[in-house]
Amino acid sequence: MADKAAPDSSRRSERSRRAILDAALELLGELGYPRLTVEAIAARAGVGKQTIYRWWPSKAAVLLDAFTDRGATPEGAEASEGAERAGAALPDTGDLEADLKLVLRAAVDQMNAPAYDLPARALTAEGLVNPELGAHFVAQVLEPPLRLFAERLRAAQDAGQVARDIDPRVAVELVCGPLTHRWLLRTLPLTHEYADAVVETALRGILQK
Amino acid sequence: MADKAAPDSSRRSERSRRAILDAALELLGELGYPRLTVEAIAARAGVGKQTIYRWWPSKAAVLLDAFTDRGATPEGAEASEGAERAGAALPDTGDLEADLKLVLRAAVDQMNAPAYDLPARALTAEGLVNPELGAHFVAQVLEPPLRLFAERLRAAQDAGQVARDIDPRVAVELVCGPLTHRWLLRTLPLTHEYADAVVETALRGILQK
Repeated sequence: MADKAAPDSSRRSERSRRAILDAALELLGELGYPRLTVEAIAARAGVGKQTIYRWWPSKAAVLLDAFTDRGATPEGAEASEGAERAGAALPDTGDLEADLKLVLRAAVDQMNAPAYDLPARALTAEGLVNPELGAHFVAQVLEPPLRLFAERLRAAQDAGQVARDIDPRVAVELVCGPLTHRWLLRTLPLTHEYADAVVETALRGILQK
Repeated sequence: MADKAAPDSSRRSERSRRAILDAALELLGELGYPRLTVEAIAARAGVGKQTIYRWWPSKAAVLLDAFTDRGATPEGAEASEGAERAGAALPDTGDLEADLKLVLRAAVDQMNAPAYDLPARALTAEGLVNPELGAHFVAQVLEPPLRLFAERLRAAQDAGQVARDIDPRVAVELVCGPLTHRWLLRTLPLTHEYADAVVETALRGILQK
């Protein structure tokens, strides 16, 4: 009996964990981040509040796990495509402009999709005023795609397409910063046309030649 | 008697309003935004909680008034210099690169100064998940300097320095987006050197000529 207890308990734990993460994402869509609470997540998941606090320190920590976990499941794949797909390299057809437009258009679609927008926006907001959570979010969610962009630009530099004196990291932020700015601050519509314009302007520069 | 009651009451109101706004900024520095409450602001300002709710719907609304008000007072001027100084035009010496570097270095100093960073960061975070407050923050705080940048770039376009086919608004975001990205997300240090690199890369472009 004792031999069987451990696997059963671990299966139960995994079932509770999954229910908690699913409840967090569902309730985020229903209540919005400011009104999301650990109590509500516990009630929806059918667990006690203390079960959540045993594993996570805050609603933001639950949400970060729910968000990063989902990218690994088939149903979450769509929300994690494009620039944010960790691990995969960016396309390299030899045409830097076309490759960047393809990836940034996918990033625009992702930022406009509630399944990505809601948790990523909530975690960004929390991270702005909660440096510890913010550091985890940046390291786990933002830095991996930024590194892929930098690698693609370094390859273009090696191929003689990007100027020698360009810092790839600065170039990455020149391309990704404006999209993030519009996405987060909702200053103007975030469209494929905007993504294209950012790529064209960043590649050729603002100055009259 | 009735004639004197109104001015007295209006002076008292203005004194309470000032005390509430000052308390909100002080407590933000002491507690951080997540732990800031309307109750704490009321206690520090020496007013009842209902006095605050009579004038503002939330702690974020108090903070937005405190932040935008301060820019109008002498002691707040330092926190509102550079790119964020509403109303003033950007410098135009005829040297676009030098002018942009000057303004963006001032913006970096501002973003790194707690008197600007704390309230602007808290209001940005709140605005990300509270669209109504976010729209007010963007309209009152972010759009005025973005329009000044666009005007400066349009002047450079008229002077033949900026390419004809550039959309000034896209160019503005190409310059301001990367700085905002580093400031808010704390991905890497926000320095004068970074501001210079963003200006140089945006003006000349990433591509090998």
